[in-house]
Amino acid sequence: MIVILRPDATEEQLKHLVEKAEKLGLKAHISRGVERTIIGFIGPEDVLRVTPLEVFPGVERVMPVLSPFKLVSREFKKDDSVIDLGHGVKIGGKKVIVMAGPCSIEGHDSLVSVAKKVKQMGATVLRGGAFKPRTSPYDFQGLGEEGLKYLSEAAQKVGIATITEIMDPRDVALVAKYADILQVGARNMQNFTLLKEVGMTKKPVMLKRGISATIKEWLMSAEYILSEGNFSVMLCERGIRTFETYTRNTLDINAVAVVKQLSHLPIVVDPSHGTGKWGLVSAASRAAVAAGCDGLMVEVHENPEEALSDGAQSLLPDNFNNLMQDLKKIAAAVSREI
Amino acid sequence: MIVILRPDATEEQLKHLVEKAEKLGLKAHISRGVERTIIGFIGPEDVLRVTPLEVFPGVERVMPVLSPFKLVSREFKKDDSVIDLGHGVKIGGKKVIVMAGPCSIEGHDSLVSVAKKVKQMGATVLRGGAFKPRTSPYDFQGLGEEGLKYLSEAAQKVGIATITEIMDPRDVALVAKYADILQVGARNMQNFTLLKEVGMTKKPVMLKRGISATIKEWLMSAEYILSEGNFSVMLCERGIRTFETYTRNTLDINAVAVVKQLSHLPIVVDPSHGTGKWGLVSAASRAAVAAGCDGLMVEVHENPEEALSDGAQSLLPDNFNNLMQDLKKIAAAVSREI
Amino acid sequence: MIVILRPDATEEQLKHLVEKAEKLGLKAHISRGVERTIIGFIGPEDVLRVTPLEVFPGVERVMPVLSPFKLVSREFKKDDSVIDLGHGVKIGGKKVIVMAGPCSIEGHDSLVSVAKKVKQMGATVLRGGAFKPRTSPYDFQGLGEEGLKYLSEAAQKVGIATITEIMDPRDVALVAKYADILQVGARNMQNFTLLKEVGMTKKPVMLKRGISATIKEWLMSAEYILSEGNFSVMLCERGIRTFETYTRNTLDINAVAVVKQLSHLPIVVDPSHGTGKWGLVSAASRAAVAAGCDGLMVEVHENPEEALSDGAQSLLPDNFNNLMQDLKKIAAAVSREI
Amino acid sequence: MIVILRPDATEEQLKHLVEKAEKLGLKAHISRGVERTIIGFIGPEDVLRVTPLEVFPGVERVMPVLSPFKLVSREFKKDDSVIDLGHGVKIGGKKVIVMAGPCSIEGHDSLVSVAKKVKQMGATVLRGGAFKPRTSPYDFQGLGEEGLKYLSEAAQKVGIATITEIMDPRDVALVAKYADILQVGARNMQNFTLLKEVGMTKKPVMLKRGISATIKEWLMSAEYILSEGNFSVMLCERGIRTFETYTRNTLDINAVAVVKQLSHLPIVVDPSHGTGKWGLVSAASRAAVAAGCDGLMVEVHENPEEALSDGAQSLLPDNFNNLMQDLKKIAAAVSREI
Repeated sequence: MIVILRPDATEEQLKHLVEKAEKLGLKAHISRGVERTIIGFIGPEDVLRVTPLEVFPGVERVMPVLSPFKLVSREFKKDDSVIDLGHGVKIGGKKVIVMAGPCSIEGHDSLVSVAKKVKQMGATVLRGGAFKPRTSPYDFQGLGEEGLKYLSEAAQKVGIATITEIMDPRDVALVAKYADILQVGARNMQNFTLLKEVGMTKKPVMLKRGISATIKEWLMSAEYILSEGNFSVMLCERGIRTFETYTRNTLDINAVAVVKQLSHLPIVVDPSHGTGKWGLVSAASRAAVAAGCDGLMVEVHENPEEALSDGAQSLLPDNFNNLMQDLKKIAAAVSREI
Repeated sequence: MIVILRPDATEEQLKHLVEKAEKLGLKAHISRGVERTIIGFIGPEDVLRVTPLEVFPGVERVMPVLSPFKLVSREFKKDDSVIDLGHGVKIGGKKVIVMAGPCSIEGHDSLVSVAKKVKQMGATVLRGGAFKPRTSPYDFQGLGEEGLKYLSEAAQKVGIATITEIMDPRDVALVAKYADILQVGARNMQNFTLLKEVGMTKKPVMLKRGISATIKEWLMSAEYILSEGNFSVMLCERGIRTFETYTRNTLDINAVAVVKQLSHLPIVVDPSHGTGKWGLVSAASRAAVAAGCDGLMVEVHENPEEALSDGAQSLLPDNFNNLMQDLKKIAAAVSREI
Repeated sequence: MIVILRPDATEEQLKHLVEKAEKLGLKAHISRGVERTIIGFIGPEDVLRVTPLEVFPGVERVMPVLSPFKLVSREFKKDDSVIDLGHGVKIGGKKVIVMAGPCSIEGHDSLVSVAKKVKQMGATVLRGGAFKPRTSPYDFQGLGEEGLKYLSEAAQKVGIATITEIMDPRDVALVAKYADILQVGARNMQNFTLLKEVGMTKKPVMLKRGISATIKEWLMSAEYILSEGNFSVMLCERGIRTFETYTRNTLDINAVAVVKQLSHLPIVVDPSHGTGKWGLVSAASRAAVAAGCDGLMVEVHENPEEALSDGAQSLLPDNFNNLMQDLKKIAAAVSREI
Repeated sequence: MIVILRPDATEEQLKHLVEKAEKLGLKAHISRGVERTIIGFIGPEDVLRVTPLEVFPGVERVMPVLSPFKLVSREFKKDDSVIDLGHGVKIGGKKVIVMAGPCSIEGHDSLVSVAKKVKQMGATVLRGGAFKPRTSPYDFQGLGEEGLKYLSEAAQKVGIATITEIMDPRDVALVAKYADILQVGARNMQNFTLLKEVGMTKKPVMLKRGISATIKEWLMSAEYILSEGNFSVMLCERGIRTFETYTRNTLDINAVAVVKQLSHLPIVVDPSHGTGKWGLVSAASRAAVAAGCDGLMVEVHENPEEALSDGAQSLLPDNFNNLMQDLKKIAAAVSREI
């Protein structure tokens, strides 16, 4: 932790700070510059995080030296984490994993039908929501456990891993019974109750980035899950909120390479939410694979006109098929496979 | 709902849309302009919200006509809502309510001590967190039920209403036992599970605006609570996330007047989070009262150097006292009282 | 300047950095912590600003210690600057100055008429644009020199100071001939050519904050003007761009107190652009005065339905009059006058 | 233009609006819904843009139907524009153009040296700034005309097209004498004086997106240039400002596909400013080509430690060479060439 003193800070104020540091078991290195005095607090920075040095008299600014995340960091683990998603599917290795399916689970037959198609086209994980976080209480909220059953049945019929969102900490056991991967959605990225609860399972978790979360906050939320003992976590960039309104969100493509630098966890990109318009999904998907993502999550629906949610950003199976052909070429160009 | 067709839309595509509308029980009014044809769908707009008209062939853009919120709107209820907070305190009327106290509850004696002071200075609600949402899993997470007990004891000793944050839907009964107002924090503004749960109680709820929530999304989250039957909801503007980093958040002062126009619910402002720096809290508080808020929530701590959270934005009791003197003058200038 | 080394930085890399520092005439203080080594570069930080220390091998992060602005800072000048605007009007002292008038100058008679009214109601500066920065090349671009003449004539008839926007560095002499204050608009906040040009005059300048400029960048743009010799600069907060779309901009009320802390320059608030809706202008104006601004700039138009620009955010004279009555009370409550 | 009336709007207010429309030569189509009445104004929407319908009594909301841009739109010109940049280089066709070189021109020999290298590695345009927009007046401002001469000499020696930034409308003739492409920087995207001035030349112009400009505003600024008669305009996405601070800017990769949908103009991506960190430039460049951009602009410096600006985001020639190899594969995967 580095503390910059105000130009008018007194010796007494400096002494008060140094004493505080020593009480906490830290050493203080003092550098007296022409215009400012700087104190470097040497020792375990964690004990300082809860100490509001900004309010000590004479302090102008406080700057942390270390990243606040530990278990998720590259420093903690040099090699890429590879996570077994079940059904022989692994994420984090050479193969880029494609998750596809409808936004919401709407019925048994429609889910089986789309599952068959996306699997045949190269997807290895089926997505579909049974509990839907909706801005309006009057919108379709998902089929609940009935939807989970359809998901599980479709997976068994087709032979594909599954992912679905969990919103309520009380539903962890229920959802874990039916699905292979638990998705924590963007709105719940800082629902710490939920993070701790999924951290206590052994199930793979996909943690979506909050709509206005910094990359550091996102990694700290992942840290919650790992710190409970569950290391099977993948991150999902799904677009952030900016001033631009033409697209639903702004896909932060930089985040892919940044996460790879800072963390060992796999990174998935969701081009459907990242753009909000089906006509932009292919370009965003190609960009994501070229940037180095480990997985993609794409909304596919056989009849978007009748979709109960997110129809505007869903691809038709034919378009998805074309996209998969394009992605194979891009993956090869970056020495990956799809 | 208004649909603008693409310049190259065909008559068949237009017909397909009109048929869809009729199937949903709506009428379609068609306006053929020089460059674009426009369809106005007349009837209950809700049935259209789940229909992704954007994906119908020939459609360029879809524009909703009505606001998605109902129960929270001024149209639904013309007069300001006044909410009884217990201990004789009401919010939404002529008196501007001040809630004050530490960020976290840190102990029994310190809480009683600060409660006495802030009450004497004019605060009528005591704030203090027992469950703390923290970015890092390694930071102080609050005292839990022990903290709630201290809060309740302090309230009884001092004679003051209380507010505290609830994070877990399973804790509703617990928190409701000890506190007068349930606070839903910014990070949980779209934790719909929690919103429904507090909506099923009869307790007053203060719903903080999410860090990047639009005013409309915020009102929609309030709608969740009202739609479950709980109309005792007040909103709290606590700063939004922008590109500016000098302050912790950007206090959206415009939101005060906007909420007053759109809704009948009382609006509280949190200048502590809205600025993140104690030296800016007074100016922000004065601005909030001048803009017309119904309440303020201010962090006050007797020894910010030892605060376990948010020390940097907490006022000392003396500064809080000065602020209250200033606010009385501002309140009078806008025909209110404090 | 503080440099944090990577955990794997070598002694050689450290030596390379220290040599660089010494070559630049700086001393390097080295603090070896448990997890990181930190170097404090002591000496004039300016020579380091152009040295990209981030690219030196072994460097993880670089943190500046000093603010980049000098002449505009409170450290440079402790007392508030008071600027003489002509016609006996001064800004920066006890009196809060109100600038009012139409967005665009639309004609001689209409300008004189509104000038008379706003002066009578308490405004001391007349605003009106002759050169209009418009998003579309097909929108009304202002009357040019003809408009400047009307402004000057109205000022003389009514006895009021004037402010108008300048967009082209070639127009400085022209605009200075007719108006008392040169306004640099938000879109030109980093038009450094224009800043230097107005810096070479002796005319008061009002520098609007760019729509997405940080407070530091804004102060740096003011520094351009002062560094050319013109110290008669006032700043104008006019709302920033955020994700919120209900209002045209988000008025950053925090900026008022922040500018007062960091700088000696007067701060004006523009509630018309800061909200974009006339129904919100009064609340924003009251908030601005309560927060401590030195001036307000309000759009007033006698017939907003016919305004050639910004009609939606213009007040009618009657509404402006009511606002002025309210503001007098608020000003008194914060020991100011209007 | 569509006007939505308030629920309490009177027949008289409706009549007043219809009369206004007719006076402007438009027809009004009225749709009376259950909760709202809607008026569609049929006719040339431009005459309405300057009419503030929002202020008419009874009006709740006004929604434009047509895009405000014309000459830059796909509707105006179906085929991609191909621009001749000189030296046999064309942008907008099958070949993806790479522009490379230092941020600032720092000397004759260093520029010739880097020009040779980047050309040999596949770049066809040399970049280098002679007039530098810098946040601080105390930072290096560029070599001015001397720099332009070096640029022109390097181009002739090496046989490569050139691009350089223009900041002052008075410098158009000067810069046009030395460089092949005039760059309008992000800070000047809405410097309309400058846009008009470059619009009156016949030189190719590259218009960078403003740091917080929407895609529509960016296209409107391009419209300024085209409306003056210069159709040789390419757009450059260079990252936008968001809340994320780990990267200097957030590269808006969605913008590539959006611009291709809305406009016929070529689109260039600047991954150096789009990330601000050299370690992220390659990933961003690969993403941009995969997304379908027509050109890239990359900062390359032989000795970033000594660069006078933007050293932290400059690639070494060796890294640039590796990037070019990667990009050739990506380009092939999307049926393009580099």
